[in-house]
Amino acid sequence: MAAFSFDKLVIFGVGLIGGSLARALRERGSSNAGGARTVIGVGRTSASSARALELGVIDGAAALDDERALAAALAGADIVLLAAPVAQTRPLLERIAPFLDATTIVTDAGSTKADVVAAARAALGGRVAQFVPGHPVAGREASGVEAALPDLYVDRNVVLCPLPENAKASVDRIADMWRATGATVHEMAPPQHDRVLASVSHLPHVLAFAYVEQILQSQDAALRFAFASGGFRDFTRIAASNPEMWRDICIANRAALLEEIDSYTAVLAALRAAIETGDGASLEAVFARSRAARADWQHRAARPAAGSADEASK
Amino acid sequence: MAAFSFDKLVIFGVGLIGGSLARALRERGSSNAGGARTVIGVGRTSASSARALELGVIDGAAALDDERALAAALAGADIVLLAAPVAQTRPLLERIAPFLDATTIVTDAGSTKADVVAAARAALGGRVAQFVPGHPVAGREASGVEAALPDLYVDRNVVLCPLPENAKASVDRIADMWRATGATVHEMAPPQHDRVLASVSHLPHVLAFAYVEQILQSQDAALRFAFASGGFRDFTRIAASNPEMWRDICIANRAALLEEIDSYTAVLAALRAAIETGDGASLEAVFARSRAARADWQHRAARPAAGSADEASK
Repeated sequence: MAAFSFDKLVIFGVGLIGGSLARALRERGSSNAGGARTVIGVGRTSASSARALELGVIDGAAALDDERALAAALAGADIVLLAAPVAQTRPLLERIAPFLDATTIVTDAGSTKADVVAAARAALGGRVAQFVPGHPVAGREASGVEAALPDLYVDRNVVLCPLPENAKASVDRIADMWRATGATVHEMAPPQHDRVLASVSHLPHVLAFAYVEQILQSQDAALRFAFASGGFRDFTRIAASNPEMWRDICIANRAALLEEIDSYTAVLAALRAAIETGDGASLEAVFARSRAARADWQHRAARPAAGSADEASK
Repeated sequence: MAAFSFDKLVIFGVGLIGGSLARALRERGSSNAGGARTVIGVGRTSASSARALELGVIDGAAALDDERALAAALAGADIVLLAAPVAQTRPLLERIAPFLDATTIVTDAGSTKADVVAAARAALGGRVAQFVPGHPVAGREASGVEAALPDLYVDRNVVLCPLPENAKASVDRIADMWRATGATVHEMAPPQHDRVLASVSHLPHVLAFAYVEQILQSQDAALRFAFASGGFRDFTRIAASNPEMWRDICIANRAALLEEIDSYTAVLAALRAAIETGDGASLEAVFARSRAARADWQHRAARPAAGSADEASK
């Protein structure tokens, strides 16, 4: 665990992601304790952060619509984390920019990065060097601060997509923060991040939502659901994810996601053709290859992506 | 648990499905014990059933290629279960037909039914009344007799697809056998069974295999797998299924499966269009509907399909 300390961390959106960071830094990091270690949560309204305060996840709360409280929250902040839906990145940054100290580093937890970088450039202009784009790859089905866990990030991957304008010290500071939660930190360019995440996260969500929708559109949906079994349960688990969040992700990562949908559709069409012509050898070859790759992945999955070439380990 | 007894049960293919039936009837049903309760396993060769015999899952073993042992195994059998891959239904029935007593009832455990019925008619001709098509809807990722469980069928659905030629007593006897394992028994016509299973089981397997194959075809497959996380794990679990078995199922249930693939492709194309045009309202509506249906299913899934109209309960 890397040494990391801070005086003041401000989290916009204290839900699963923001709440877990707060809990990890406060509950796991006592041996590294430096300054006052204050964590302030900011919600859309004062009610939004009330539950996080009640649970002791944060030390103080402010509301976005209360200018004085917002200014006080941001004064002297070491790090600001944006953990709200990605579509809110630009309005959030525009709202906080006037109150941002020159030494504060801002980062985010958005699932897409090219659009976040564009939003940050638009909102921060010449001060964009203060913004280090990031993405902790650690979702759960459950959401909200009640689901926040101090060990959510242990052995999980965090991707940082540094801007050319970022000082190395700023990137290192954000990387150290995530390492202090137990995560492994990687660096990627935004388009690479967006392509990889479109593939391993966004596409399967779209496929699972589409699958349940297809059953719902059938004449005998109730009968079908009645005979769905274990394989169905696992395959559709991600179709229970938050609709608003996934709507935003699909639109924010549109370009990369469309490419994945198109190449998926081509593979599915090839399998369809093999089924139609009774080409058992082709089907078996694809199924066997998939099974072997899945088994290999499962074997490696106990560890984070420690072997990848772009790892920013120290 | 329904009362059920038998003197001699012969199982062709003592793997997960056949072995679990043997264990359920022998280990769960002692209070209903009637006659000698002998279970004979038949494999392609004598080696095939050796492990089942060693584990005590069966009382005796015979090899398909040993005509005398096969005749002895079938003599006086109450029930014969075919639990081999569906593609073997016709050659198996042709092989055993000469040795089949007139009072023996034959059933099967195949995942598709229209093709099994056609195979049975071709192989048994005028004796097809002895064959009651069935399908215990109870897979596991694990296969082989080592994975067999005495409670595999508890609260699971078994679908019977009786033929017009079947005597009611024959259908009742097979239904009673499955109920004795703890299963709930339903009746469907073969096309309805094949459509429902294509939808809730065969299609998601094809979609999951296609998804892993699409990653494998990408330029940066290793990087993608390195960042795959929890959602990926559940979504691809069924892509670890047996390639030969799924090749056979896809071809055996070709017509129904192609219809499902086509309607799925149409739904996916509609979602693609909504993503491309940034139609967030449509995306959110589909995602919300899928999430609600999945949650509703999860809520009901604790129980078998007890409410369906076609349940053959007594």
